[in-house]
Amino acid sequence: MGELSTLFAPERVAVVGASEKEGTVGYAITKNLRDDFAETVVPVNPNRDDVLGLDCYGSVGEAGDIDVAVVVVPPTIVLDVVREAAEAGVEDVVVITAGFGESGGEGSDRERDLVALAEEYDLNLVGPNSLGIMSTALDLNATFGPRNASPGNISFMSQSGAFITAVLDWAAERNIGFKDVVSLGNKAVLDESDFAKEWGDDEDTDVILGYLEDITDGQAFIETAREVTQETPMLVVKSGRTQAGASAAASHTGAIAGSDAAYETGLDQAGVLRVESVQELFDSAEILAGQPLPETDGVAIISNAGGPGVMATDAVGDSDISLADFTDETLDRLQEYLPEEANIYNPVDIIGDAPIERFEETIDIVLDDDNVGMAIVLSCPTATLSFEDLADATVSLQAEHGTPVAATLMGGTSTEAAADRLSDAGIPTYFDPERAVGSLEALSEYAEIQDKEYSEPETFDIDRERVSEILTSAVEEGRTQLGVESMDLLDACGIETPQGDVVDSPREAEALADAIEGDVVMKIVSPDITHKSDIGGVEVGVATEAVADTYEDLVVRARNYQPDADIVGVQLQEMVDLDAGTETIVGVNRDPQFGPLVMFGLGGIFVEIMEDTSFRVAPVTESDGQAMIDEVTSSPLLYGARGREPADVPALVEVIQRVSQLVTEFPAITELDINPVVATPDGAAAIDLRLTLDAEALQTQEQP
Amino acid sequence: MGELSTLFAPERVAVVGASEKEGTVGYAITKNLRDDFAETVVPVNPNRDDVLGLDCYGSVGEAGDIDVAVVVVPPTIVLDVVREAAEAGVEDVVVITAGFGESGGEGSDRERDLVALAEEYDLNLVGPNSLGIMSTALDLNATFGPRNASPGNISFMSQSGAFITAVLDWAAERNIGFKDVVSLGNKAVLDESDFAKEWGDDEDTDVILGYLEDITDGQAFIETAREVTQETPMLVVKSGRTQAGASAAASHTGAIAGSDAAYETGLDQAGVLRVESVQELFDSAEILAGQPLPETDGVAIISNAGGPGVMATDAVGDSDISLADFTDETLDRLQEYLPEEANIYNPVDIIGDAPIERFEETIDIVLDDDNVGMAIVLSCPTATLSFEDLADATVSLQAEHGTPVAATLMGGTSTEAAADRLSDAGIPTYFDPERAVGSLEALSEYAEIQDKEYSEPETFDIDRERVSEILTSAVEEGRTQLGVESMDLLDACGIETPQGDVVDSPREAEALADAIEGDVVMKIVSPDITHKSDIGGVEVGVATEAVADTYEDLVVRARNYQPDADIVGVQLQEMVDLDAGTETIVGVNRDPQFGPLVMFGLGGIFVEIMEDTSFRVAPVTESDGQAMIDEVTSSPLLYGARGREPADVPALVEVIQRVSQLVTEFPAITELDINPVVATPDGAAAIDLRLTLDAEALQTQEQP
Repeated sequence: MGELSTLFAPERVAVVGASEKEGTVGYAITKNLRDDFAETVVPVNPNRDDVLGLDCYGSVGEAGDIDVAVVVVPPTIVLDVVREAAEAGVEDVVVITAGFGESGGEGSDRERDLVALAEEYDLNLVGPNSLGIMSTALDLNATFGPRNASPGNISFMSQSGAFITAVLDWAAERNIGFKDVVSLGNKAVLDESDFAKEWGDDEDTDVILGYLEDITDGQAFIETAREVTQETPMLVVKSGRTQAGASAAASHTGAIAGSDAAYETGLDQAGVLRVESVQELFDSAEILAGQPLPETDGVAIISNAGGPGVMATDAVGDSDISLADFTDETLDRLQEYLPEEANIYNPVDIIGDAPIERFEETIDIVLDDDNVGMAIVLSCPTATLSFEDLADATVSLQAEHGTPVAATLMGGTSTEAAADRLSDAGIPTYFDPERAVGSLEALSEYAEIQDKEYSEPETFDIDRERVSEILTSAVEEGRTQLGVESMDLLDACGIETPQGDVVDSPREAEALADAIEGDVVMKIVSPDITHKSDIGGVEVGVATEAVADTYEDLVVRARNYQPDADIVGVQLQEMVDLDAGTETIVGVNRDPQFGPLVMFGLGGIFVEIMEDTSFRVAPVTESDGQAMIDEVTSSPLLYGARGREPADVPALVEVIQRVSQLVTEFPAITELDINPVVATPDGAAAIDLRLTLDAEALQTQEQP
Repeated sequence: MGELSTLFAPERVAVVGASEKEGTVGYAITKNLRDDFAETVVPVNPNRDDVLGLDCYGSVGEAGDIDVAVVVVPPTIVLDVVREAAEAGVEDVVVITAGFGESGGEGSDRERDLVALAEEYDLNLVGPNSLGIMSTALDLNATFGPRNASPGNISFMSQSGAFITAVLDWAAERNIGFKDVVSLGNKAVLDESDFAKEWGDDEDTDVILGYLEDITDGQAFIETAREVTQETPMLVVKSGRTQAGASAAASHTGAIAGSDAAYETGLDQAGVLRVESVQELFDSAEILAGQPLPETDGVAIISNAGGPGVMATDAVGDSDISLADFTDETLDRLQEYLPEEANIYNPVDIIGDAPIERFEETIDIVLDDDNVGMAIVLSCPTATLSFEDLADATVSLQAEHGTPVAATLMGGTSTEAAADRLSDAGIPTYFDPERAVGSLEALSEYAEIQDKEYSEPETFDIDRERVSEILTSAVEEGRTQLGVESMDLLDACGIETPQGDVVDSPREAEALADAIEGDVVMKIVSPDITHKSDIGGVEVGVATEAVADTYEDLVVRARNYQPDADIVGVQLQEMVDLDAGTETIVGVNRDPQFGPLVMFGLGGIFVEIMEDTSFRVAPVTESDGQAMIDEVTSSPLLYGARGREPADVPALVEVIQRVSQLVTEFPAITELDINPVVATPDGAAAIDLRLTLDAEALQTQEQP
């Protein structure tokens, strides 16, 4: 039982603002509750003695013990009503009333006050601006929607109330049932993480679905969802995933749009399956609720029609699952049993004249094969076969073998009775072969999520004090960007950088160049000169013997440009041969919902033109870092493609991990780009760093 | 009226092999025809006087004038029966009987004889191995399928008979009607091009659909379909598009699998819309049959629910159509009319309490906007609105404005009556917003196809005689690959190559190097030495003064490797600075169905690792060549991205066109790779060519 169990299984529910006036929300909710709720409904309205035949009270305080107060009073008195309920000992409150954060101005103030109140009394508060909640266990329909949910084992949260009414209407004729339904509203107090946790603890919820337009706290969500999804699959439609959609969502909910890259990896890191359409949401939910998880990801296709078998095979080819390789034994058994014209290889074609026995025997042989983790039974209408017989055979063979199965019955009304029999046994049925494949793919993805072991990020020896000093000095000098101290910062993080330092005389420069051996890069260092290259303040490939003269030249050029410039000296660096390695980029942006988002890609062309990048929400573990590298299409270049020497990929993974640790420990770093990190066979060196600071965050943050 | 019009509108149809025995194909077809056909059915069976109450004849010859003979006799006597029918003057024959090409061996011989017979008598022959044909105009059901098609304006061809039975069963309850339906069978005589042409000429066919596993003659199909699709949209599910699917299709139909890249571009070049699922096939067909084409591709979304509006917007973001930008006038009108909480920007959210009048007025204002080419009307169930009223308003406003509209009614049974009203007016309705967007996208794509003007490929001045000589000599020398003459061949095609020639003495080498100026590349030329580099037979960056010595060295190395090698001389070439330009690749493969398939991509990494390539079936026009370049993601590198000097793209387009012309005029060239073609600001030069010849094809081809 979760912390919110009373919210969904109350004994006495008060409707504050109950009404007898048809067309009002107070009427609709009271009526829905009165008509269906298995326990007690208590209308509260100071102006009436009874509402819809139920005794009515003047206030929550007078109404006796109340488990859940549903609030439908005008926005200006919501706070008073909620405080009164809280004082009367009510712990669970559903605020239906709109006119809060979503309206801006006064509404936002009101929402802030409501949050403070909820914190003061430790309230479980749904909304405001919510359609309400439902739970089929007690026939609880505390919404003003027109239809109650049918009972089932799916729990569903939605940031759009309209979407709930739409889905319930649509689901009713599709045999799709729900346990709990919540309209999240403005999520002022309770949000997606709370309900994920609650339903993860609820034995009657087999699948958790969500329609979300944003995620309140990405890091908290990842933590909660990882735990929940070890037991219960969770599927989310995150809308606003395209730029156009994100703008529309922002104007709809007032949410600050996070980047979709953050949602994409954030949901994935949380173990949540992200889907893109309502059909996919419920197709996946249905199979996850009805079928066991596959033991391998190989799928067998058994059909009585060649063409549709090919369509199913195409869909498998497009998916992340693959056609099962039958064992020799299976092929021998099929060869012996099936007529000559049949195709015994996967996809198995038992041809159009197949009677039920041929389907039965074939399914039985195929499900016996250990390489077969899942199966699709596909049939077109034929004169020799009844869809109902096929359904019965499929149900019993699925149960016998324990292998997950999806059916594709390619017909219209003639398939309905069979589809019902399959559905009753938890086997989904579709017309389109690709939907069957999509469902099995979701099943297989969830099996992987359950197998996943989340590791803690490694902690590296970072010189926190030095990092802190560098950042603080920059801010004290009024800068939000780092200058020459960039290399020091990387060094403090244990990231390899080219040899070098800032020198303040030609002689010192020469000495350093001597120590470095080989050509060097020299850059003027002055807080007054930002675009060094433009004024001739950078020289590359300087030989040791020319270093002293170049020092003088750089200073002269700086003085010519700005006579009173404060010249700190010259930065002198080992000249790294970029051609000796592969240029990569490691970057970080701070996402409003998920926090630091780490990016990896190969050098300029691949990132800027090919958009070949990968992302992870920090902290990034070793396996995540490795996966980030492997996910980019250009990664073979790091592994020795086209005759290159393979780069030291573990060193690159470590750079990613160290960067992740840096931005996690120093939230004042808002943006960071190490471009390039040159990966060679012997290591990975950071050549240039751009870093942006939030001065305010630095001053307020706790220093590590 | 097309050439096949009698096939679909016959007056007298003979069933040769008619039977009264239930469960036989001869019975099923005779019964289907007898029950429904508006004209005369003539059973033919030498063993009976009547079949199913119809007078039966001993042979087609005795049956009087017959328009279409449907043949269901055993395979061994099909040829006799068809010949008899042909001699009796029958022009249209449907061979249902299987046991031909699809069974291999004797069956293939039989199919070859059948084709010869059809050619001899100029027969329109469907099949063999066909389910039959249907035409709803005369209630003709000459198939052994269980269900007749409902009348409508879609004509449908399928290479899978089972898929026809499936689709008809499914379509029956969905208000989807057909004009003609053909099961193509083995396509021994009539194929997809013939039916495309027929239905393009048929006034009663508004949309042509196809399920194809292969295309018999790609070039002929492109030519026919281009003409047809100027008037009639054509949609195809080409199965076997993935590798797994292609293998399955090959084993199903025995078709030689062409590459999917060829189908992808071939169908596109033909003006055919390729779809991937049955749902998409019929969604697209329905809107193309029911709605006008858009004048611009901007789509407006009008909804009474924010969340689903965002989902629709996401789907637009994923598609090739875009959200319409409303004019200021529209925004002013919406601002004035709608309540404050509404969102007047696209997607318009008229909010949940909207009555029908608000929908009507908003739709009217939005459709008035010239920037709006299409619209989606989206509604969730609400207490203030009836779906039927919304349907009526949508139908009349769509008719008034002439703008294509798709509806999204997000509910279950409560939407059915409204959906019927919309469907009767040709407006499709879906639950999922993304299906509405997908349909409008198909509409917009077809509008582009109709606007497209196909140009003839330019003919360049290619020295055909020289090309022919080069190819012929190679073959005469027993080679299928070109050697040093590669550069000559490119030169004969008018493609720029590095300066150079084959020389046969150190002195001659020196003279040529003098003329070239700058360093050169030198390669030993010997028919006996194939891997020149391995034996030290190649030297790059040779200075003029070292050329004579290098000549001697190369010869010595070759002799050391193989004392009796026939040494022709040394090839000496201008050394091209690859860094001065961008390396690209132009290649050609010959596809079994579509013929020469031209490929373009940027140098090695982009082609091999990023798989960033584009394809066209030859001949390639100038605009196609330009599009091939623009389609690759890496193309900005040719246009000056990242500080490069822009390359001479028109010169590169010309190389593609010249290659296209070469392989079109010389079918003996089976493969060709110019790698690299270096594109510089001043032109595009081919540095290396690999070319493979089909010796047999060269000997038999007509010399140009």
